Amino acid sequence: MTYDQIELPDVSALRIGIIGGTGPQGRGLAYRFARAGLRVVLGSRSTERGAQAAEELNALPGVQQQAEGGDNTFACQADVVVIAVPWEGHESTVAELAPHLTGGKIVVDCVNPLGFDKQGPYSLPVAEGSAAEQAATLLPEARVCAAFHHVSAALLTDPEIAKIDLDVLVLGDDRDAALQVQAIAEKVDGMRGVFAGRLRNAGQVEALTANLIAINKRYKVHAGVRVTDL
Amino acid sequence: MTYDQIELPDVSALRIGIIGGTGPQGRGLAYRFARAGLRVVLGSRSTERGAQAAEELNALPGVQQQAEGGDNTFACQADVVVIAVPWEGHESTVAELAPHLTGGKIVVDCVNPLGFDKQGPYSLPVAEGSAAEQAATLLPEARVCAAFHHVSAALLTDPEIAKIDLDVLVLGDDRDAALQVQAIAEKVDGMRGVFAGRLRNAGQVEALTANLIAINKRYKVHAGVRVTDL
Repeated sequence: MTYDQIELPDVSALRIGIIGGTGPQGRGLAYRFARAGLRVVLGSRSTERGAQAAEELNALPGVQQQAEGGDNTFACQADVVVIAVPWEGHESTVAELAPHLTGGKIVVDCVNPLGFDKQGPYSLPVAEGSAAEQAATLLPEARVCAAFHHVSAALLTDPEIAKIDLDVLVLGDDRDAALQVQAIAEKVDGMRGVFAGRLRNAGQVEALTANLIAINKRYKVHAGVRVTDL
Repeated sequence: MTYDQIELPDVSALRIGIIGGTGPQGRGLAYRFARAGLRVVLGSRSTERGAQAAEELNALPGVQQQAEGGDNTFACQADVVVIAVPWEGHESTVAELAPHLTGGKIVVDCVNPLGFDKQGPYSLPVAEGSAAEQAATLLPEARVCAAFHHVSAALLTDPEIAKIDLDVLVLGDDRDAALQVQAIAEKVDGMRGVFAGRLRNAGQVEALTANLIAINKRYKVHAGVRVTDL
């Protein structure tokens, strides 16, 4: 089937929890989901900071659906849970939340294991192959997908920017879960959700963020990716 | 500087040698370069097959500049040498040609280290980090870039297709060499040559081909990549 023929599920009633909802990527994604009318639950290590982030989000222009906030375990109660923490805290945070991410819950990992030195960004080796596969290892009872790696936090959080014109590459071994994540991406104005393979091919998608940062530096842009011929 | 402001060198007089010029990727790139008016030298393990491939290429519609053909060492005499061999033969071929790829010659590696099993394509680990870094290790006297990983041989070789609408991600540690490779990509109708980082970030660009193959399979397309905001 071609891209246009693939029917995506209706995700408009799903609650989206964001682990790391106070960081730039988490806040940015939450804002775009809230603008798209999705119900967002911002999680933080501290209940207060999560609640405050929700309050700040709700004050932004264009929010169609009021967000809630709390600690990360509160955000884990949502239907779909997005992991948007810094790579440094990825393993410990995911391991800690594992008891709350069971029952086939959809978990979307959007973490990029990158290092930076004088020559710029580079991808860090991950024993499991990728951040997403590390999450899948730690969360055997969840359905882990990988997505939203290449969206610029600067663009996501800028209320003046109406459309996020790029494709979100969605990876996952569970077809239904991947379709739901694709559908969530499609809710955001300008985004397409494109299935881009099994989780074992997530490492290079995460690492490609280093290339996009190099492109940003060379050309003074906020680079993303579009898939051609689609 | 923005993308439009970066001035690319004039590469119209350069001879482009193709190692593996009888394979689908090599023939496809050679055809597009010849259509763009560049002088192409097709290399093969056998002089006869290289010459025959050039003859076949020159009979294709739209060729602006007659190609030559010969063995791989003949192709190494060109100004810019493209490595387009199967991954299986990459290390031995490059090592064998090393004495001919010296003096700061620009070598463009476009090889994707991929494996295939019942679940589809996946990226193979490379001790040096990537095919391109393997080439750079084997060719200390060349200026190695990585590029042309994501162009579909099916599209390249189809004379009916006038434009190859995608961005070629060019990686390299030598800025002048990378600019020349970008300029070569820009010669092909529809292509842009985009600098995408240092060679140490080539691995994920090579591996991303596995994702594009997964996309091709899911959506029945010939997927490539465009960089957004550029």
